[in-house]
Amino acid sequence: MIAQTPQPPYYAVIFTSVRTEGDHGYNEMANQMVALGSTMKGFLGIESAREEIGISVSYWDSLESIKAWKQEAAHQVAQEKGRSQWYAAYKTRISLVERDYGFEQ
Amino acid sequence: MIAQTPQPPYYAVIFTSVRTEGDHGYNEMANQMVALGSTMKGFLGIESAREEIGISVSYWDSLESIKAWKQEAAHQVAQEKGRSQWYAAYKTRISLVERDYGFEQ
Repeated sequence: MIAQTPQPPYYAVIFTSVRTEGDHGYNEMANQMVALGSTMKGFLGIESAREEIGISVSYWDSLESIKAWKQEAAHQVAQEKGRSQWYAAYKTRISLVERDYGFEQ
Repeated sequence: MIAQTPQPPYYAVIFTSVRTEGDHGYNEMANQMVALGSTMKGFLGIESAREEIGISVSYWDSLESIKAWKQEAAHQVAQEKGRSQWYAAYKTRISLVERDYGFEQ
């Protein structure tokens, strides 16, 4: 689903990753983190897809909301498992959406 | 592949889409557009994945470079085919990457 975000400006966290082999509890935790993240103050939506690489873009109202999510306790556990088990590599980019436009048939 | 982008600030164009049924020449054109876009002035990299939705994030040095790519002639043809044939819906978000960090095993 394309996220239904408000009028800009708002923030986008672009998380691009390469997985290690095997699941190691990844899919269950990923679903839990989407569910938990969605309850955070300032969360505006999320879009995800994975092929050779995975891209998850989450949308937020402010840098403060992004920081609170990064520091959330269960999310910190997931981030640590990400580095120790699930990801061969990742990159996180914090960006300010200045303009958007869309199309629907 | 995770794009090898320079130190921020730089721009990210987040293009999220839902495809129509069937190929209709989409994959060939998509490959052509990645090849052509990569030759544009100010292009910094691209990351793409598709499952239920497709997410392509292209990185650019400036709004001027993004505008030049949007107006490029062959790309304009592709955009028109996108609306008439390939996409049920899409959203384009122009964003300024303020900060990034990564991890590699």
